[in-house]
Amino acid sequence: MDFDDVVRGRRSIRRFTDRPVPDETVGQILDLARHAPSSMNGQPWCFVVVRSAETKRRLAELKNRFCPLEKREYPADFLATAPVVIAVCAHRDRAHDRGRESALLASATILLAAHRFGLGSVFLSAYESKGDELRTAIAGLLGLPDGVEPFTLLPLGHPGGPPVGKALRPRSELVHIERYGRLPPED
Amino acid sequence: MDFDDVVRGRRSIRRFTDRPVPDETVGQILDLARHAPSSMNGQPWCFVVVRSAETKRRLAELKNRFCPLEKREYPADFLATAPVVIAVCAHRDRAHDRGRESALLASATILLAAHRFGLGSVFLSAYESKGDELRTAIAGLLGLPDGVEPFTLLPLGHPGGPPVGKALRPRSELVHIERYGRLPPED
Repeated sequence: MDFDDVVRGRRSIRRFTDRPVPDETVGQILDLARHAPSSMNGQPWCFVVVRSAETKRRLAELKNRFCPLEKREYPADFLATAPVVIAVCAHRDRAHDRGRESALLASATILLAAHRFGLGSVFLSAYESKGDELRTAIAGLLGLPDGVEPFTLLPLGHPGGPPVGKALRPRSELVHIERYGRLPPED
Repeated sequence: MDFDDVVRGRRSIRRFTDRPVPDETVGQILDLARHAPSSMNGQPWCFVVVRSAETKRRLAELKNRFCPLEKREYPADFLATAPVVIAVCAHRDRAHDRGRESALLASATILLAAHRFGLGSVFLSAYESKGDELRTAIAGLLGLPDGVEPFTLLPLGHPGGPPVGKALRPRSELVHIERYGRLPPED
């Protein structure tokens, strides 16, 4: 599939059909994720592939419990019904102080690769912007040892409907030339 | 270009030729970056496109000055000679407390898109893992107002030679089934 089409066509999907996601497809997606960059090439990733209904239900419950007030219009209930949830984690002793960055870069590949394989996903962090309770609870649920931290929870499934419309900000509003405030000519 | 080929072929490039990078190509890359996901669809990005030799020299100097001891084998001198450096920043009032995540996801698209257009890049953070000095200095250099934070510095240029060999960890070493420690069967 064409790279530009994958990037432009990928959307955040929060509703999934029952159609199963084969292990082989999950493997192909994670195979691509391995190619993400990482600090000092430490490749600190650990991908926990969750299919257990009970674990997915508890992940959804944890995400909802720690959801900030302003984001409650997006409950994480769909984690319980997605066929697969990938928890992207990093080993601290391979992360060179950049576990979060390496985990997020691999997560970006997974989000794109899901779309390339006809699946949907959405970015969910496995930690609060302040505080450690969510991260600790998820680490406990997944049996992560000390030194392995969870960073994202990415559902995988066949989209349960067309994505909601999304207006992109024009490029001319986002780009600054040399210094902030020097805008490029309009296209 | 095929998505899988872009993901598998992308490498971290730290040496660039003098061959110019047209504004049009930079625009096409940033056009793809706009499609990255962001918290609450806030699209908080601000991309500062730096071509000024003096600004690039000072960015390289700042990155080197704040480089942790263990990473000194990778000096950032190449920022000064890359034709273009993109500083990926985020507006705090659009970021919903996830400016870093949104900036890193757009940065992941830029790294891949660079390769898709025949260019090289490498992930450099614009902040220290602890401390605010680097971030503040870069914000000052780029004239970022209060509430706009820099997150990454991504050079763009034609690769100045083949990339160094890189061994990937096998997938079976990275994947865990349901809980940490339950490894999948070997491929």
